[in-house]
Amino acid sequence: MKKLFAEFFGTFWLVFGGCGSALFSSQIAPSANGQMGILLIGVALAFGLTVLTMAYAVGHISGGHFNPAVSFGLLAGGRFSARDLAPYIVAQCFGAIAAAGALYVIVNGSGTPDFSAPGAFATNFYDAPVYFEKSYSMSAAFITEFLLTAFFLIIIMGATDKDADGKFAGIAIGLALTLIHLISIPITNTSVNPARSLSQAIFVGGKAVSQLWLFWAAPILGGVSGGLIYKFLLQKKV
Amino acid sequence: MKKLFAEFFGTFWLVFGGCGSALFSSQIAPSANGQMGILLIGVALAFGLTVLTMAYAVGHISGGHFNPAVSFGLLAGGRFSARDLAPYIVAQCFGAIAAAGALYVIVNGSGTPDFSAPGAFATNFYDAPVYFEKSYSMSAAFITEFLLTAFFLIIIMGATDKDADGKFAGIAIGLALTLIHLISIPITNTSVNPARSLSQAIFVGGKAVSQLWLFWAAPILGGVSGGLIYKFLLQKKV
Amino acid sequence: MKKLFAEFFGTFWLVFGGCGSALFSSQIAPSANGQMGILLIGVALAFGLTVLTMAYAVGHISGGHFNPAVSFGLLAGGRFSARDLAPYIVAQCFGAIAAAGALYVIVNGSGTPDFSAPGAFATNFYDAPVYFEKSYSMSAAFITEFLLTAFFLIIIMGATDKDADGKFAGIAIGLALTLIHLISIPITNTSVNPARSLSQAIFVGGKAVSQLWLFWAAPILGGVSGGLIYKFLLQKKV
Amino acid sequence: MKKLFAEFFGTFWLVFGGCGSALFSSQIAPSANGQMGILLIGVALAFGLTVLTMAYAVGHISGGHFNPAVSFGLLAGGRFSARDLAPYIVAQCFGAIAAAGALYVIVNGSGTPDFSAPGAFATNFYDAPVYFEKSYSMSAAFITEFLLTAFFLIIIMGATDKDADGKFAGIAIGLALTLIHLISIPITNTSVNPARSLSQAIFVGGKAVSQLWLFWAAPILGGVSGGLIYKFLLQKKV
Repeated sequence: MKKLFAEFFGTFWLVFGGCGSALFSSQIAPSANGQMGILLIGVALAFGLTVLTMAYAVGHISGGHFNPAVSFGLLAGGRFSARDLAPYIVAQCFGAIAAAGALYVIVNGSGTPDFSAPGAFATNFYDAPVYFEKSYSMSAAFITEFLLTAFFLIIIMGATDKDADGKFAGIAIGLALTLIHLISIPITNTSVNPARSLSQAIFVGGKAVSQLWLFWAAPILGGVSGGLIYKFLLQKKV
Repeated sequence: MKKLFAEFFGTFWLVFGGCGSALFSSQIAPSANGQMGILLIGVALAFGLTVLTMAYAVGHISGGHFNPAVSFGLLAGGRFSARDLAPYIVAQCFGAIAAAGALYVIVNGSGTPDFSAPGAFATNFYDAPVYFEKSYSMSAAFITEFLLTAFFLIIIMGATDKDADGKFAGIAIGLALTLIHLISIPITNTSVNPARSLSQAIFVGGKAVSQLWLFWAAPILGGVSGGLIYKFLLQKKV
Repeated sequence: MKKLFAEFFGTFWLVFGGCGSALFSSQIAPSANGQMGILLIGVALAFGLTVLTMAYAVGHISGGHFNPAVSFGLLAGGRFSARDLAPYIVAQCFGAIAAAGALYVIVNGSGTPDFSAPGAFATNFYDAPVYFEKSYSMSAAFITEFLLTAFFLIIIMGATDKDADGKFAGIAIGLALTLIHLISIPITNTSVNPARSLSQAIFVGGKAVSQLWLFWAAPILGGVSGGLIYKFLLQKKV
Repeated sequence: MKKLFAEFFGTFWLVFGGCGSALFSSQIAPSANGQMGILLIGVALAFGLTVLTMAYAVGHISGGHFNPAVSFGLLAGGRFSARDLAPYIVAQCFGAIAAAGALYVIVNGSGTPDFSAPGAFATNFYDAPVYFEKSYSMSAAFITEFLLTAFFLIIIMGATDKDADGKFAGIAIGLALTLIHLISIPITNTSVNPARSLSQAIFVGGKAVSQLWLFWAAPILGGVSGGLIYKFLLQKKV
């Protein structure tokens, strides 16, 4: 039960901190001096720090997944039991949705925003020219989410390997998520985490819901692939 | 006594470094090239690094609170003695005010600024449309400060748990404060620390003083909640 | 064999993450608010985090070179065997080229870009006024790449010295690469890694190929110099 | 002798990396998209990473001062022997000047710059309205350099205290220098290091030389104060 609380609070923090920094702080331009917000680099840093901080805070309780694709990947890699998979994913999704609800209330505290407008909520997307200067096709988005989640799992499996300096895993894994966001916010707004995508989509609806399948399929397939790659190509045989 | 010196210097550093970076460096635009300051991401980084650096410097002396809401939260979580609460808070407030005095002198060294102008001193605020593009209501500000301090305490309790990799606590806790600022500078200018709010308000007066109650109430209630959440829902029973 | 897989995946990640963040995220300006991308600081952070993350993930398998100049430098410094040099470099180049191929596919997913245009792919260069405000001569570029790779190897040799706190080497070495990019992106787009330069040049051709010699010669000479400097001037005699 | 080499290379790296990132990368604006350089936050990060990386690389050889004010402060704090003071400072100054020479050559590789123009070389200054939007008086500059170096030494003394988690000292001390730059680049261009100030001044002359006294006096007095504060107010009696 403590494990599920840990996953709940950890995923709450991931969505509240990562999506929250994107919503509140990424663009702030109060004067002719131009931009003074945290920019996309600040959002990337925020997502990574949610995981870094919670990994050291509750990683010793639940393992610190905070992400269904990580739970699937660790199952494929032989580091997680199938019995725990469903409860973990449920706790992660509840935590993510609760955080999205808190964000919804706070955003409403600054007026009456239109949550279906681009950027009003931190949804993931593909083939969506309204967000950034360029838009990327569905296949480019799929490849990106797949590859990034696969490498995320290679890093997670490797950094927590018994032959590695395991105490540094929280730093390596958290900053890996920062790196993943540095690469891919302009492509898909970066998911690699189905619970994070779900939590935003259900408050926005429309295209965010109809595109949600990709942000479950690509990260989970990528995560499973990463877990298998580490297990069979990299991990020392016992 | 050494404990109180440690809290004094630590809180001085938090206010001098965090508020100082906001005052001196956040917006700098010397040319047509636009903004070249440290932006809000730099201020967020600065606040976190004040705690990270002092946690490794004097954390072994006083525990490294530097914040009345942290002292209250650790008391609620069973990690701090009620007898030390008042002296710690007094030392923190003195350190914060001394730092604000030093900032006041240095700011005066660049001319004769109007300290009641928005942004002239690093006060916290709500419902204050003069600071950033959007302003947030009192209740949005309260929820934000409450939630962020609660999670701050969950991270502090967790990262210093005897089952955790405790030597990394300084990194996790310092970067948690960076993350908290990445999320919430545009909402309240980020307090989560009553001593920090007090120190700026007494040099500015006016609205900064009349809104000060929120930046004592919300962080302390949040900190106590976080301490209790960790203790009862997450911490292993002894 | 596992060592070569580790070098392949590690160098893939270095090029995919570092060059990818430069291609997708460095400049994003969707509105009159000006720049909101990750800027050159974000690219510098990304390159460093590729090495930091993979050092903790697979460093215990292959040593975590991900760079022919590092392999040469460690050979000169007496920390790597000549027998492994060629296979390592082949694995690194294959990993880098595979990553460049993945980037090529994703970039194509946003339309039909002209890969020979400046900035369309993350090539290295000198004497190339089309990229940034100033251009630097061939000799300035050579000195810069030489010096930076030499210091990179001094840091690698030192941080993994048996007298050093070796478990922190992944942090020190990864962040050294961030620092190197902070200094030199405007000079050469920063190589210090022949495999990274090769991978971009072969997709772009033209000047990127004709200038490639410098991005093999200067990093390898610098790396060898750094390895020898540490070995003879700094390392404790056994 | 190895100690002096370590201080030479370490201080070279501090000046080459810190001042170099300021010279080459802080402002880059190739297009109408506005600024894409590393901004002052990137310069602050670079200075800190020079110390973080070299602390792990050669800290086990020389202690990793790279700064006359640190050597003076550690002497005052009882952690460094008077006999080593002069040779350390000479090695630091030679390293800093050699790095400035390398920067001079590379800057020349981009044309024929006027090294006496503001921002052409990374000099320290006070009361100098040509650099940033505001200028700060001599006394504001002195107080700032004094206070920041004092806290720098408190952090160094504390993080390397035998009761502290000493292996993290390289992270705490390096990031303390980043924090110091986040606060004070707009005030004095940040010295806290006489060797760094000297190295830039001798290539530029004029006001940089006539103001140099402050960037020796304030950091050394601050460093000594910080060393004494830690020793007498914070350090456990033996």
